[in-house]
Amino acid sequence: MINPNISVDCVVFGFDGQNLNVLLIEQKDVGQMRKFALPGDHLEEDEDLDTAAQRVLKEITSLSGLYLRQSGAFGDPDRVKNIKDLPWLQSNRSNPEARVITIAYYALVKMEDFNPSASSFAERVFWQSAHNIPELAFDHSKIVKTALSTLRQEVSELRVGHELLPEKFTLTQVQSLHESILNSSFDKRNFRKKALNDSWVIPLDEKQTGVFHKPARLYSWNKDRLSI
Amino acid sequence: MINPNISVDCVVFGFDGQNLNVLLIEQKDVGQMRKFALPGDHLEEDEDLDTAAQRVLKEITSLSGLYLRQSGAFGDPDRVKNIKDLPWLQSNRSNPEARVITIAYYALVKMEDFNPSASSFAERVFWQSAHNIPELAFDHSKIVKTALSTLRQEVSELRVGHELLPEKFTLTQVQSLHESILNSSFDKRNFRKKALNDSWVIPLDEKQTGVFHKPARLYSWNKDRLSI
Repeated sequence: MINPNISVDCVVFGFDGQNLNVLLIEQKDVGQMRKFALPGDHLEEDEDLDTAAQRVLKEITSLSGLYLRQSGAFGDPDRVKNIKDLPWLQSNRSNPEARVITIAYYALVKMEDFNPSASSFAERVFWQSAHNIPELAFDHSKIVKTALSTLRQEVSELRVGHELLPEKFTLTQVQSLHESILNSSFDKRNFRKKALNDSWVIPLDEKQTGVFHKPARLYSWNKDRLSI
Repeated sequence: MINPNISVDCVVFGFDGQNLNVLLIEQKDVGQMRKFALPGDHLEEDEDLDTAAQRVLKEITSLSGLYLRQSGAFGDPDRVKNIKDLPWLQSNRSNPEARVITIAYYALVKMEDFNPSASSFAERVFWQSAHNIPELAFDHSKIVKTALSTLRQEVSELRVGHELLPEKFTLTQVQSLHESILNSSFDKRNFRKKALNDSWVIPLDEKQTGVFHKPARLYSWNKDRLSI
Protein backbone atom coordinates (compact mmCIF):
# COMPACT_ATOMS: atom_id res chain seq x y z
CA MET A 1 0.00 0.00 0.00
CA ILE A 2 1.14 3.47 -0.96
CA ASN A 3 1.56 6.25 1.62
CA PRO A 4 -0.38 9.19 0.14
CA ASN A 5 1.55 11.80 2.12
CA ILE A 6 5.21 10.87 1.57
CA SER A 7 7.25 10.63 -1.59
CA VAL A 8 10.88 10.43 -2.63
CA ASP A 9 12.48 12.31 -5.53
CA CYS A 10 15.87 11.62 -7.07
CA VAL A 11 18.33 14.11 -8.49
CA VAL A 12 20.86 12.10 -10.48
CA PHE A 13 23.81 14.21 -11.63
CA GLY A 14 25.77 12.79 -14.56
CA PHE A 15 29.25 13.93 -15.57
CA ASP A 16 30.31 13.19 -19.16
CA GLY A 17 33.92 14.32 -18.80
CA GLN A 18 33.02 17.88 -19.78
CA ASN A 19 29.58 18.84 -18.52
CA LEU A 20 27.29 18.27 -15.59
CA ASN A 21 23.82 16.96 -16.38
CA VAL A 22 20.68 16.07 -14.46
CA LEU A 23 18.44 13.10 -15.23
CA LEU A 24 14.91 14.27 -16.01
CA ILE A 25 11.76 12.56 -17.15
CA GLU A 26 9.06 13.72 -19.47
CA GLN A 27 5.75 12.61 -17.96
CA LYS A 28 3.12 11.07 -20.20
CA ASP A 29 0.84 13.77 -21.58
CA VAL A 30 -2.44 14.03 -19.66
CA GLY A 31 -2.94 17.72 -20.40
CA GLN A 32 -0.72 19.06 -17.65
CA MET A 33 1.25 22.25 -18.32
CA ARG A 34 4.57 21.06 -16.92
CA LYS A 35 5.73 17.74 -18.34
CA PHE A 36 9.32 17.66 -17.12
CA ALA A 37 10.06 16.36 -13.67
CA LEU A 38 12.49 14.48 -11.49
CA PRO A 39 11.99 10.74 -11.17
CA GLY A 40 9.99 10.37 -7.95
CA ASP A 41 7.00 8.58 -6.46
CA HIS A 42 5.23 7.68 -3.25
CA LEU A 43 6.57 5.56 -0.44
CA GLU A 44 5.15 2.11 0.23
CA GLU A 45 3.70 1.79 3.74
CA ASP A 46 6.24 -0.83 4.85
CA GLU A 47 9.23 0.64 3.08
CA ASP A 48 12.28 2.49 4.37
CA LEU A 49 13.12 5.83 2.72
CA ASP A 50 16.44 4.71 1.21
CA THR A 51 14.83 1.58 -0.21
CA ALA A 52 12.02 3.65 -1.68
CA ALA A 53 14.49 5.98 -3.41
CA GLN A 54 16.27 3.03 -5.04
CA ARG A 55 13.01 1.33 -6.04
CA VAL A 56 11.38 4.44 -7.49
CA LEU A 57 14.47 5.42 -9.49
CA LYS A 58 14.66 1.93 -10.92
CA GLU A 59 10.95 1.70 -11.74
CA ILE A 60 10.92 4.98 -13.63
CA THR A 61 14.36 5.12 -15.25
CA SER A 62 15.75 1.54 -14.93
CA LEU A 63 18.84 2.85 -13.09
CA SER A 64 20.05 0.87 -10.12
CA GLY A 65 23.02 0.58 -7.82
CA LEU A 66 23.56 4.32 -7.44
CA TYR A 67 24.92 5.82 -4.23
CA LEU A 68 21.86 7.92 -3.35
CA ARG A 69 22.06 10.25 -0.37
CA GLN A 70 19.45 12.55 1.12
CA SER A 71 19.66 16.20 0.20
CA GLY A 72 16.64 17.46 2.14
CA ALA A 73 12.97 17.13 2.97
CA PHE A 74 10.54 19.46 1.21
CA GLY A 75 7.27 20.16 2.95
CA ASP A 76 5.72 23.38 1.72
CA PRO A 77 1.97 22.79 2.27
CA ASP A 78 1.33 24.03 -1.29
CA ARG A 79 4.07 22.12 -3.06
CA VAL A 80 1.66 19.95 -5.09
CA LYS A 81 -1.14 22.52 -5.37
CA ASN A 82 -0.07 24.34 -8.55
CA ILE A 83 -2.81 24.39 -11.21
CA LYS A 84 -0.18 23.47 -13.84
CA ASP A 85 0.25 20.06 -12.21
CA LEU A 86 -3.39 19.32 -11.49
CA PRO A 87 -4.27 17.22 -14.58
CA TRP A 88 -1.30 14.95 -13.87
CA LEU A 89 -2.28 14.57 -10.22
CA GLN A 90 -5.88 13.80 -11.20
CA SER A 91 -4.70 11.12 -13.64
CA ASN A 92 -2.07 9.56 -11.42
CA ARG A 93 -3.14 9.94 -7.81
CA SER A 94 -6.11 8.45 -6.00
CA ASN A 95 -6.16 11.50 -3.73
CA PRO A 96 -4.90 14.42 -5.84
CA GLU A 97 -5.67 16.89 -3.04
CA ALA A 98 -3.42 15.19 -0.49
CA ARG A 99 -0.53 17.11 0.96
CA VAL A 100 2.74 15.42 0.00
CA ILE A 101 6.06 15.82 1.77
CA THR A 102 8.98 14.61 -0.27
CA ILE A 103 12.41 13.39 0.74
CA ALA A 104 14.98 14.30 -1.91
CA TYR A 105 17.94 12.11 -2.78
CA TYR A 106 20.89 12.80 -5.03
CA ALA A 107 23.77 10.97 -6.66
CA LEU A 108 26.70 11.84 -8.88
CA VAL A 109 27.65 9.34 -11.59
CA LYS A 110 29.76 8.96 -14.69
CA MET A 111 27.19 9.19 -17.46
CA GLU A 112 28.90 6.54 -19.57
CA ASP A 113 28.27 3.94 -16.84
CA PHE A 114 24.49 4.25 -16.93
CA ASN A 115 21.92 3.88 -19.63
CA PRO A 116 18.50 5.05 -18.44
CA SER A 117 15.25 3.98 -20.10
CA ALA A 118 11.75 5.25 -19.34
CA SER A 119 8.88 3.30 -17.83
CA SER A 120 5.91 3.75 -15.42
CA PHE A 121 4.45 7.27 -15.90
CA ALA A 122 7.57 8.48 -17.72
CA GLU A 123 7.24 8.85 -21.48
CA ARG A 124 10.93 9.62 -21.83
CA VAL A 125 14.02 9.94 -19.68
CA PHE A 126 16.94 12.17 -20.67
CA TRP A 127 20.05 13.98 -19.46
CA GLN A 128 19.71 17.74 -19.34
CA SER A 129 22.48 20.28 -18.72
CA ALA A 130 22.42 21.06 -14.98
CA HIS A 131 22.87 24.71 -15.80
CA ASN A 132 19.93 24.88 -18.19
CA ILE A 133 16.99 23.17 -16.52
CA PRO A 134 13.51 23.78 -18.02
CA GLU A 135 10.46 24.53 -15.87
CA LEU A 136 9.75 21.43 -13.80
CA ALA A 137 6.62 20.03 -12.16
CA PHE A 138 5.79 20.68 -8.48
CA ASP A 139 8.77 22.14 -6.55
CA HIS A 140 11.28 20.06 -8.50
CA SER A 141 13.25 23.13 -9.64
CA LYS A 142 13.88 23.99 -6.00
CA ILE A 143 14.87 20.39 -5.26
CA VAL A 144 17.43 20.43 -8.10
CA LYS A 145 18.80 23.76 -6.88
CA THR A 146 19.24 22.48 -3.34
CA ALA A 147 20.94 19.27 -4.51
CA LEU A 148 23.23 21.31 -6.72
CA SER A 149 24.30 23.47 -3.74
CA THR A 150 25.02 20.34 -1.73
CA LEU A 151 27.07 18.95 -4.60
CA ARG A 152 28.99 22.21 -5.03
CA GLN A 153 29.82 22.34 -1.37
CA GLU A 154 31.05 18.75 -1.54
CA VAL A 155 33.15 19.21 -4.63
CA SER A 156 34.75 22.40 -3.34
CA GLU A 157 35.65 20.50 -0.17
CA LEU A 158 36.88 17.60 -2.31
CA ARG A 159 34.40 15.19 -0.78
CA VAL A 160 32.97 13.94 -4.08
CA GLY A 161 33.92 13.53 -7.68
CA HIS A 162 37.13 11.52 -7.37
CA GLU A 163 35.54 8.45 -8.83
CA LEU A 164 34.49 10.44 -11.90
CA LEU A 165 38.01 10.67 -13.28
CA PRO A 166 40.28 7.77 -14.21
CA GLU A 167 42.88 6.74 -11.64
CA LYS A 168 45.51 8.82 -13.43
CA PHE A 169 44.37 12.08 -14.94
CA THR A 170 45.54 15.45 -16.21
CA LEU A 171 45.00 18.73 -14.41
CA THR A 172 42.82 19.80 -17.32
CA GLN A 173 40.45 16.97 -16.45
CA VAL A 174 40.28 18.08 -12.80
CA GLN A 175 39.64 21.62 -13.91
CA SER A 176 36.78 20.50 -16.22
CA LEU A 177 35.20 18.57 -13.36
CA HIS A 178 35.31 21.57 -11.02
CA GLU A 179 34.20 24.00 -13.69
CA SER A 180 31.23 21.90 -14.74
CA ILE A 181 29.95 21.44 -11.19
CA LEU A 182 30.63 24.97 -10.02
CA ASN A 183 29.51 26.44 -13.37
CA SER A 184 32.49 28.76 -13.43
CA SER A 185 35.64 28.97 -15.44
CA PHE A 186 38.94 29.25 -13.72
CA ASP A 187 42.22 30.66 -14.89
CA LYS A 188 44.35 27.67 -15.84
CA ARG A 189 47.52 28.85 -14.05
CA ASN A 190 45.69 29.76 -10.85
CA PHE A 191 43.72 26.55 -10.80
CA ARG A 192 46.89 24.47 -11.20
CA LYS A 193 48.71 26.44 -8.55
CA LYS A 194 45.86 25.97 -6.10
CA ALA A 195 45.49 22.24 -6.78
CA LEU A 196 49.20 21.72 -6.17
CA ASN A 197 49.58 24.12 -3.21
CA ASP A 198 46.58 22.64 -1.44
CA SER A 199 47.97 19.16 -2.20
CA TRP A 200 44.75 17.82 -3.72
CA VAL A 201 46.74 15.94 -6.33
CA ILE A 202 50.09 14.21 -6.53
CA PRO A 203 52.17 14.59 -9.70
CA LEU A 204 53.14 11.21 -11.16
CA ASP A 205 56.26 10.40 -13.08
CA GLU A 206 54.12 9.64 -16.12
CA LYS A 207 52.65 11.45 -19.07
CA GLN A 208 49.67 10.93 -21.34
CA THR A 209 50.18 8.53 -24.21
CA GLY A 210 48.42 8.24 -27.55
CA VAL A 211 47.62 11.94 -27.90
CA PHE A 212 48.51 14.12 -30.85
CA HIS A 213 49.32 17.21 -28.81
CA LYS A 214 52.22 17.51 -26.40
CA PRO A 215 51.44 14.87 -23.74
CA ALA A 216 50.43 16.34 -20.38
CA ARG A 217 51.65 15.14 -17.02
CA LEU A 218 49.42 12.70 -15.15
CA TYR A 219 48.32 13.08 -11.54
CA SER A 220 46.51 11.03 -8.94
CA TRP A 221 44.32 12.17 -6.04
CA ASN A 222 46.11 12.72 -2.75
CA LYS A 223 44.34 10.17 -0.59
CA ASP A 224 45.56 11.78 2.67
CA ARG A 225 44.02 15.07 1.68
CA LEU A 226 40.71 13.45 0.73
CA SER A 227 40.07 11.63 3.96
CA ILE A 228 38.37 13.86 6.50
CA MET B 1 -5.05 19.71 12.62
CA ILE B 2 -2.07 17.47 13.27
CA ASN B 3 -0.53 15.29 10.56
CA PRO B 4 -0.34 11.81 12.17
CA ASN B 5 2.45 10.61 9.84
CA ILE B 6 5.02 13.41 9.96
CA SER B 7 6.99 14.85 12.84
CA VAL B 8 10.02 17.04 13.43
CA ASP B 9 12.73 16.44 16.02
CA CYS B 10 15.35 18.94 17.15
CA VAL B 11 18.93 18.23 18.16
CA VAL B 12 20.19 21.38 19.88
CA PHE B 13 23.91 21.25 20.58
CA GLY B 14 25.14 23.62 23.28
CA PHE B 15 28.76 24.60 23.79
CA ASP B 16 29.69 25.92 27.26
CA GLY B 17 33.25 26.93 26.41
CA GLN B 18 34.55 23.49 27.36
CA ASN B 19 32.08 20.76 26.48
CA LEU B 20 29.51 19.90 23.88
CA ASN B 21 26.02 19.12 25.17
CA VAL B 22 22.68 18.09 23.68
CA LEU B 23 19.33 19.40 24.84
CA LEU B 24 17.13 16.51 26.02
CA ILE B 25 13.73 16.27 27.61
CA GLU B 26 12.42 13.90 30.21
CA GLN B 27 8.90 12.96 29.17
CA LYS B 28 6.16 12.90 31.79
CA ASP B 29 5.93 9.45 33.33
CA VAL B 30 3.12 7.35 31.84
CA GLY B 31 4.82 4.04 32.51
CA GLN B 32 7.04 4.01 29.45
CA MET B 33 10.49 2.46 29.75
CA ARG B 34 12.41 5.21 27.99
CA LYS B 35 11.74 8.67 29.35
CA PHE B 36 14.51 10.66 27.70
CA ALA B 37 13.96 12.03 24.23
CA LEU B 38 14.67 14.85 21.85
CA PRO B 39 12.17 17.69 21.73
CA GLY B 40 9.90 16.79 18.82
CA ASP B 41 6.27 16.61 17.79
CA HIS B 42 3.91 16.27 14.85
CA LEU B 43 3.49 18.67 11.99
CA GLU B 44 0.35 20.77 11.65
CA GLU B 45 -1.45 20.11 8.36
CA ASP B 46 -0.93 23.65 7.04
CA GLU B 47 2.58 24.12 8.35
CA ASP B 48 5.95 24.20 6.61
CA LEU B 49 8.68 21.91 8.01
CA ASP B 50 11.01 24.71 9.12
CA THR B 51 8.14 26.50 10.85
CA ALA B 52 7.14 23.29 12.59
CA ALA B 53 10.67 22.75 13.90
CA GLN B 54 10.75 26.26 15.40
CA ARG B 55 7.25 25.94 16.88
CA VAL B 56 7.78 22.50 18.40
CA LEU B 57 11.11 23.43 19.96
CA LYS B 58 9.55 26.52 21.48
CA GLU B 59 6.44 24.71 22.77
CA ILE B 60 8.46 22.02 24.51
CA THR B 61 11.60 23.84 25.68
CA SER B 62 10.74 27.58 25.34
CA LEU B 63 13.78 28.11 23.08
CA SER B 64 13.32 30.32 20.05
CA GLY B 65 15.34 32.10 17.39
CA LEU B 66 17.80 29.25 16.81
CA TYR B 67 19.33 28.62 13.41
CA LEU B 68 17.84 25.16 12.83
CA ARG B 69 18.90 23.20 9.77
CA GLN B 70 17.80 19.78 8.52
CA SER B 71 20.08 16.88 9.29
CA GLY B 72 18.01 14.11 7.71
CA ALA B 73 14.70 12.36 7.36
CA PHE B 74 14.17 9.15 9.32
CA GLY B 75 11.62 6.72 7.98
CA ASP B 76 12.26 3.22 9.28
CA PRO B 77 8.75 1.64 9.23
CA ASP B 78 9.37 0.39 12.79
CA ARG B 79 10.82 3.55 14.28
CA VAL B 80 7.90 4.12 16.67
CA LYS B 81 7.01 0.46 17.19
CA ASN B 82 9.28 -0.37 20.15
CA ILE B 83 7.38 -1.81 23.12
CA LYS B 84 9.39 0.48 25.42
CA ASP B 85 7.70 3.52 23.89
CA LEU B 86 4.16 2.11 23.66
CA PRO B 87 2.69 3.51 26.91
CA TRP B 88 3.83 7.00 25.93
CA LEU B 89 2.33 6.64 22.45
CA GLN B 90 -0.94 5.36 23.91
CA SER B 91 -1.12 8.34 26.29
CA ASN B 92 -0.07 11.00 23.82
CA ARG B 93 -1.21 9.97 20.35
CA SER B 94 -4.73 9.53 19.00
CA ASN B 95 -3.38 6.86 16.64
CA PRO B 96 -0.47 5.18 18.46
CA GLU B 97 -0.12 2.59 15.68
CA ALA B 98 0.52 5.15 12.94
CA ARG B 99 3.76 5.08 11.06
CA VAL B 100 5.66 8.32 11.66
CA ILE B 101 8.41 9.73 9.47
CA THR B 102 10.43 12.41 11.16
CA ILE B 103 12.48 15.27 9.77
CA ALA B 104 15.42 16.00 12.05
CA TYR B 105 16.79 19.49 12.61
CA TYR B 106 19.90 20.59 14.45
CA ALA B 107 21.48 23.77 15.76
CA LEU B 108 24.67 24.71 17.57
CA VAL B 109 24.44 27.42 20.22
CA LYS B 110 26.37 29.00 23.04
CA MET B 111 24.72 27.50 26.11
CA GLU B 112 24.96 30.72 28.07
CA ASP B 113 22.67 32.47 25.57
CA PHE B 114 19.73 30.14 26.11
CA ASN B 115 17.73 29.17 29.12
CA PRO B 116 15.38 26.27 28.34
CA SER B 117 12.31 25.46 30.41
CA ALA B 118 10.01 22.45 30.07
CA SER B 119 6.38 22.47 28.99
CA SER B 120 3.87 20.37 26.98
CA PHE B 121 4.64 16.66 27.51
CA ALA B 122 8.12 17.41 28.87
CA GLU B 123 8.52 17.07 32.62
CA ARG B 124 12.05 18.44 32.48
CA VAL B 125 14.51 19.79 29.95
CA PHE B 126 18.27 19.55 30.46
CA TRP B 127 21.67 19.69 28.81
CA GLN B 128 23.42 16.35 28.56
CA SER B 129 27.01 15.71 27.50
CA ALA B 130 26.93 14.88 23.78
CA HIS B 131 29.39 12.09 24.40
CA ASN B 132 27.35 10.45 27.13
CA ILE B 133 23.76 10.22 25.92
CA PRO B 134 21.42 7.86 27.84
CA GLU B 135 19.04 5.49 26.06
CA LEU B 136 16.50 7.61 24.21
CA ALA B 137 12.92 6.99 23.04
CA PHE B 138 12.14 5.88 19.46
CA ASP B 139 15.15 6.22 17.12
CA HIS B 140 16.35 9.39 18.81
CA SER B 141 19.79 7.96 19.58
CA LYS B 142 20.32 7.44 15.87
CA ILE B 143 19.08 10.97 15.14
CA VAL B 144 21.58 12.43 17.64
CA LYS B 145 24.37 10.34 16.13
CA THR B 146 23.60 11.52 12.61
CA ALA B 147 23.39 15.17 13.67
CA LEU B 148 26.70 14.80 15.50
CA SER B 149 28.39 13.46 12.34
CA THR B 150 27.04 16.41 10.37
CA LEU B 151 28.33 18.80 13.01
CA ARG B 152 31.75 17.14 13.09
CA GLN B 153 32.05 17.35 9.35
CA GLU B 154 31.15 21.03 9.48
CA VAL B 155 33.51 21.90 12.28
CA SER B 156 36.41 20.04 10.68
CA GLU B 157 35.73 22.01 7.49
CA LEU B 158 35.45 25.19 9.60
CA ARG B 159 31.90 25.80 8.46
CA VAL B 160 30.45 26.18 11.97
CA GLY B 161 31.47 27.18 15.43
CA HIS B 162 33.01 30.58 14.80
CA GLU B 163 30.20 32.37 16.56
CA LEU B 164 30.77 30.23 19.66
CA LEU B 165 33.98 32.00 20.60
CA PRO B 166 34.40 35.69 21.38
CA GLU B 167 35.69 37.89 18.55
CA LYS B 168 39.23 37.66 19.92
CA PHE B 169 40.25 34.36 21.43
CA THR B 170 43.21 32.22 22.42
CA LEU B 171 44.32 29.11 20.56
CA THR B 172 43.44 27.13 23.68
CA GLN B 173 39.82 28.18 23.22
CA VAL B 174 39.85 27.03 19.57
CA GLN B 175 41.37 23.74 20.62
CA SER B 176 38.67 23.20 23.29
CA LEU B 177 35.96 23.86 20.72
CA HIS B 178 37.39 21.34 18.28
CA GLU B 179 38.13 18.77 20.96
CA SER B 180 34.64 18.96 22.44
CA ILE B 181 32.90 18.53 19.10
CA LEU B 182 35.24 15.88 17.72
CA ASN B 183 35.52 14.17 21.12
CA SER B 184 39.27 13.85 20.74
CA SER B 185 42.24 15.46 22.36
CA PHE B 186 44.93 16.98 20.23
CA ASP B 187 48.58 17.61 20.96
CA LYS B 188 48.81 21.32 21.74
CA ARG B 189 51.87 22.01 19.55
CA ASN B 190 50.46 20.13 16.55
CA PHE B 191 47.07 21.74 16.85
CA ARG B 192 48.61 25.22 16.94
CA LYS B 193 50.88 24.47 14.02
CA LYS B 194 47.95 23.22 11.96
CA ALA B 195 45.69 26.15 12.82
CA LEU B 196 48.41 28.60 11.77
CA ASN B 197 49.67 26.70 8.70
CA ASP B 198 46.16 26.22 7.37
CA SER B 199 45.51 29.91 8.08
CA TRP B 200 42.28 29.34 10.04
CA VAL B 201 43.23 32.09 12.45
CA ILE B 202 45.10 35.38 12.30
CA PRO B 203 47.42 36.31 15.18
CA LEU B 204 46.58 39.72 16.63
CA ASP B 205 48.97 42.16 18.19
CA GLU B 206 47.15 41.75 21.50
CA LYS B 207 47.27 39.53 24.55
CA GLN B 208 44.80 38.43 27.17
CA THR B 209 44.26 40.83 30.06
CA GLY B 210 43.07 40.24 33.60
CA VAL B 211 44.44 36.72 33.89
CA PHE B 212 46.73 35.47 36.65
CA HIS B 213 48.83 33.23 34.40
CA LYS B 214 51.12 34.50 31.64
CA PRO B 215 48.70 36.17 29.18
CA ALA B 216 48.24 34.27 25.91
CA ARG B 217 48.19 35.83 22.47
CA LEU B 218 44.79 36.60 20.99
CA TYR B 219 43.64 35.55 17.53
CA SER B 220 40.68 36.18 15.25
CA TRP B 221 39.14 33.93 12.60
CA ASN B 222 40.52 34.32 9.10
CA LYS B 223 37.38 35.41 7.26
CA ASP B 224 38.87 34.60 3.83
CA ARG B 225 39.48 31.06 4.89
CA LEU B 226 35.98 30.63 6.27
CA SER B 227 34.05 31.72 3.21
CA ILE B 228 33.52 28.84 0.84
